[in-house]
Amino acid sequence: MGQSWEEIAADKRARLAKTIPAEWKIEELPTEDSVLDFPRTSGLLSAEELEITGSSAVDLVAKLAKGQLKSVDVTQAFCKRAALAQQLTNCVHEFFPETALAQARELDAYFEKNNGPIGPLHGLPISLKDQFRVKGVETSMGYVSWLGKYDEEESVLTTLLRKAGAVFYVKTSVPQTLMVCETVNNIIGRTVNPRNKNWSCGGSSGGEGAMVGFRGGIMGVGTDIGGSIRIPSAFNFLYGIRPSHGRMPYARMANSMEGQETVHSVVGPIAHSVADIKLFLTSVLHEQPWKYDSKVVPLPWRQDEEDAVKSKLKTGGLNVGFYRSDGNVLPHPPVLRGVDLVVDALKKNGHNVFPWTPYRHDYAVDLINGIYASDGCEDIMKDIKASGEPAIPNIKNLLRPDIQKVDMNSLWDVHLQKWNFQIEYLAKLREMDAQLGSEIDCIVAPISPTAAIRHNQFKYYGYASTINLLDFTSVVVPVTFADRDIDKKNDSHTPASDMDKEVQSEYDPDAYHGAPVAVQVIGRKLTEERTLAIAEEIGRLLGNSVTP
Amino acid sequence: MGQSWEEIAADKRARLAKTIPAEWKIEELPTEDSVLDFPRTSGLLSAEELEITGSSAVDLVAKLAKGQLKSVDVTQAFCKRAALAQQLTNCVHEFFPETALAQARELDAYFEKNNGPIGPLHGLPISLKDQFRVKGVETSMGYVSWLGKYDEEESVLTTLLRKAGAVFYVKTSVPQTLMVCETVNNIIGRTVNPRNKNWSCGGSSGGEGAMVGFRGGIMGVGTDIGGSIRIPSAFNFLYGIRPSHGRMPYARMANSMEGQETVHSVVGPIAHSVADIKLFLTSVLHEQPWKYDSKVVPLPWRQDEEDAVKSKLKTGGLNVGFYRSDGNVLPHPPVLRGVDLVVDALKKNGHNVFPWTPYRHDYAVDLINGIYASDGCEDIMKDIKASGEPAIPNIKNLLRPDIQKVDMNSLWDVHLQKWNFQIEYLAKLREMDAQLGSEIDCIVAPISPTAAIRHNQFKYYGYASTINLLDFTSVVVPVTFADRDIDKKNDSHTPASDMDKEVQSEYDPDAYHGAPVAVQVIGRKLTEERTLAIAEEIGRLLGNSVTP
Repeated sequence: MGQSWEEIAADKRARLAKTIPAEWKIEELPTEDSVLDFPRTSGLLSAEELEITGSSAVDLVAKLAKGQLKSVDVTQAFCKRAALAQQLTNCVHEFFPETALAQARELDAYFEKNNGPIGPLHGLPISLKDQFRVKGVETSMGYVSWLGKYDEEESVLTTLLRKAGAVFYVKTSVPQTLMVCETVNNIIGRTVNPRNKNWSCGGSSGGEGAMVGFRGGIMGVGTDIGGSIRIPSAFNFLYGIRPSHGRMPYARMANSMEGQETVHSVVGPIAHSVADIKLFLTSVLHEQPWKYDSKVVPLPWRQDEEDAVKSKLKTGGLNVGFYRSDGNVLPHPPVLRGVDLVVDALKKNGHNVFPWTPYRHDYAVDLINGIYASDGCEDIMKDIKASGEPAIPNIKNLLRPDIQKVDMNSLWDVHLQKWNFQIEYLAKLREMDAQLGSEIDCIVAPISPTAAIRHNQFKYYGYASTINLLDFTSVVVPVTFADRDIDKKNDSHTPASDMDKEVQSEYDPDAYHGAPVAVQVIGRKLTEERTLAIAEEIGRLLGNSVTP
Repeated sequence: MGQSWEEIAADKRARLAKTIPAEWKIEELPTEDSVLDFPRTSGLLSAEELEITGSSAVDLVAKLAKGQLKSVDVTQAFCKRAALAQQLTNCVHEFFPETALAQARELDAYFEKNNGPIGPLHGLPISLKDQFRVKGVETSMGYVSWLGKYDEEESVLTTLLRKAGAVFYVKTSVPQTLMVCETVNNIIGRTVNPRNKNWSCGGSSGGEGAMVGFRGGIMGVGTDIGGSIRIPSAFNFLYGIRPSHGRMPYARMANSMEGQETVHSVVGPIAHSVADIKLFLTSVLHEQPWKYDSKVVPLPWRQDEEDAVKSKLKTGGLNVGFYRSDGNVLPHPPVLRGVDLVVDALKKNGHNVFPWTPYRHDYAVDLINGIYASDGCEDIMKDIKASGEPAIPNIKNLLRPDIQKVDMNSLWDVHLQKWNFQIEYLAKLREMDAQLGSEIDCIVAPISPTAAIRHNQFKYYGYASTINLLDFTSVVVPVTFADRDIDKKNDSHTPASDMDKEVQSEYDPDAYHGAPVAVQVIGRKLTEERTLAIAEEIGRLLGNSVTP
C-alpha cells in the first residue's frame, strides 16, 4: 500500500529540511513578530553577503557583467539568506543551493573564458514560484498528489531566463490550488509575512512575496490570474507587475485548471524597484519569447513608449484617473489614505488627477468568479482527492455547493459577456479621452481592500480580479504603512453588501499597525513600458523608489 | 401564423431584386460560362465607369483625396457594376445604392467644405461580407431565421472604416453556417464564379470573391476561420490576407458559434493587389482599433518590418521554405505546378528556397475539425432549425452523426493540445533558423488542393485550416491558371486516405481548364508587414502584380 497523504507531506518536509546546510541553520528562532532585521542582527551573514543581498538586481548584473562580482559569491549570498527566509517564514517548496552554485561556477568560467557575460542576467540568482518547471526538481504546487515527480522538461521561461544567464536556487511556496491570495497548503503549512508573522505574505505567489521581501531573492517570478503577483507585492512593500496576456511566455508552466483560457493567468516579476522589473522584462524580451511560445506577441521592449511617458513627466502632463472604492467593498482606512497620498503627490507635481468611476465592477467580479469555477472545480478537486488530503479552508468560497460545470454554449456566452464588458470599458476610456482632449495615461486604485492582511481573512479579490478580466497592465507600487494613530476605524460606513461588511469589520488599527499599503497603477492592454514608467515616477514622488 | 421558410426566403429574394434600379437590369442574361468580360462588352457601363472600376483602390483614394474624382461618381460606378455582378453571379445579400450615394454626397460635401479628405479611405466604396453589421440593414448570414431584423448597432470595423471615409453599398453572400468553402444557402441559392459559372467562387467569403473578382468592388472584407478569406481569393485570382488574431477588430460582427474562442475567426481584405491590401490595413490601424476592440493588439503598421524584408529582396536574400503536399491530400496537378512556378521564380532571383516538411498536419486537421464541432453543432443547428429550413448538403461532414458536445475539462485538454502543437511548430521553425544560420522568412504552400473548384466538390480544408490552428499570417497570391495541355491527370498517385483519393479523382483537365491557381505565403504570428511584402514580390516576379 502507498503512504498516506500525511506521510507523503511529512517526508517532503523532512527532505526539504535536509536541503539547508547545517552552517545555515538558525539555532534559536526569534520570537519577535518581525524577522526583517534578522539577517543584519543575527550575525549569520557576512558584511559582503549583506551588501550583495541588500543591493539591486540592476547593480548586481552591472557588476557581474564587468567581472567586479562573481556569480558564485552572489549565489552563495542569496542561497544563505534564502535559507534564513525559509526557516523564518516557511516560504520554500524546493531549495537546491548545490545545483545553483554549480551553475554559478559554470557562468563564472564562461565569463573568464569569453571575457564577458553570457546574457543580460549573467550570474544573477532569481527566485521562482513553484509553478515553474526546472529540470530535476519537483513541482508540487501545493498538491500532495503531485509530489515525487521530478521534471524533465523545463518551462519556456525557465529556459529563456537560463539563456539570459539567470541562476536558479529555489522554488517558493504557493497555496493549494493557487486560487487564494494567502499561502497555505497541506505540505508545508503556512507561509508568513517577514514583517509580521501574524500577517499573510499574500498569495498565490506568496512564497515569492516573503522571499523577495526578506531579500532572500533580489527578484522573484510569480503568476497572476486574480491578484497572485500583485497581492504578495503589496503585502510585502514591493513592486510587481501583472503584464497583459501575451507579453511574457507562460508555456510549459504547471497550473491548476491547465488549458482554461477564458481568463489567462500571466507571469511577471516581483522586485524592489521598477528598474529591476524593467531589467527582468527587457532580458526576457531580448530572448524573443515569441519564437518559443505561440501565445507571446512579437513585441520587443518599446523604448519610445517609455520615453513618451517620461517626457510627459517632465512637464507635469500626466492624465491620471483614480478610485478609492470599486463600489463593491470599501477599503480599510490605511488603503484609502494610500490612494490619497498618491493623488496628492501627483497633483502637487502638476499632473492632472481626476476621479474615475469604476464601470460595472460588481458585474465583473461575478463574471470572473464564475469563470474560475467553470468546470465545477473538477480539475482542482481531482488533484486534491488524488492523495486524500483535505481542501484548505481558504477555498471554501470557490467550492460553494451550487457550482456546476458550465456547458460549452454557456461558456461561449460567457466569452461574449467578457468581450462586451471589455469593449464597454474601452468606450468609457475613450469618453474620458474625449473629455480630457488627450489620452488618459493610467488609473490609480487599491489592489486589495486591506493592508497586509491577518491570516485567513482574505475574502475579496475584486480589486485585483477585475483587472484580470480586462487584461489591463497593472503595476503595484508600495505606498505607506498602516498607522493606528492616523487610520482610525471607520464607524460611519453603511455596508453595500455582506462582503463589504465582513471586510470592513476586519479592520483593527492595532493589529494592522505597520502593515504595508500599496496601490496599483493600471494601464491599457499591453502598455507595460508606459505603465511601469508612471509607477516608477509615483514611487519616486513618494520616496519609495530605488533608482540605481 | 408565421410564414414558411420558403416564403420568407422568396420574400427576401423579391426584396433584393427590387433594390436594383430598372436601368441597371440586364435584359438578356448571357449564356457563356464566363461573365468576366460582360461589363466591357455589354455597353451598360460608360467609359468612365469602366475606368473607375478597372482602377486600383490606391489610385482611387489618391484621386479622391486630391479632388480629381468625386465619391458620388466612384460610388455610382461600383454600385452599377455590383448590380451586374449580382445578376450574373448571385453574390449579394444586401444592396443599398441609395444609402451609399447619399453617404458619398456627404463625403463630397465634406471635401468641398474642408478642402480635403475625411480619412485615408475618403469616398472609397468597400464591399462587406454579410457578417458585418451596418445600421438599418439586415444581417442574415445565410440563415432564414435571421431575416427581418435590421441592425441598430454597427460592427466595430464598420464604424472604423466609416471614420476612415469608406462608403458602404453592398453586403455579399455567404454559405449557411459560414463553415463551408463554397457559397450556397437556402435564401438566395448559389453564388458562382464570374470566370466560369461551373466553378465555385469559394467560401465562406464567396460573395466577396465573386464581387471583387468581377470588380463590382475594388476591395472586399471577409473573415477566415478555416480558409474563408483565402479560398475565395484563390478561386478568383485575387490577393487576400488572413491576418493573425488580434491584428484587425472583429468586435460586434455577426457569427455562427459566437463566443467560440478556441480558434478565432479573423477579418481581412480581399483585393487585386498587395498595395490595396496594405491600404486597407494601414487605414484601419490609423484609427487605433485597439481602443475599440479589446482583442486587438496595440500594434500600428510597422514600416520598419516591411522595409527589412524589402532590403532583403534587393539582395536576393530571402529564406523561403515550401511544400507541395501536406502529406494528407495531394493537390491537383495545376496546384503543384503553381507551387513550382513560385519556387522557380524565387530561385531564379537568387533567393534561398528549400523544402519545408509539414509538421503533423494530419494531427492539426483532426484537432481543428473537432474544435469546429465542439458544441456538437448545437449553435448552428439552433439557427437552422429556427426557421425549419434544411441544412445545406455541404455541411454533411461537419454534422457527422458521432459528434458530441465537448465537456469543459476536455475543452481545456484541447486548448493544451493546440498550444503544444503551436509550440512544437515554433521549435521546427527555430531548428530551420539554426540550420540556415538566419531566420526563415516565410513558407510557400498550396491553399487548396484544387484550382477554383466545381460545385459541391470542396471537401478538404486542411491546407487552409492548419494555418488557422497555428494562427500564422497567411497571404494568398494568384499564380496561374489550370491548363489542360500541361496539367495532365496524375495516374501514378497512391492515395494516403479516402479523402486523398476522393480529392484526386475529382481532377479533370478539361473541366478545370482556365481555373485560377494560387499559393499562400505563410509567415509567423502577427507578421503582416513582412508577409505582405514577400507576397507582393512573388506577385511581381510572376507578373501578377498590380503596382500602382
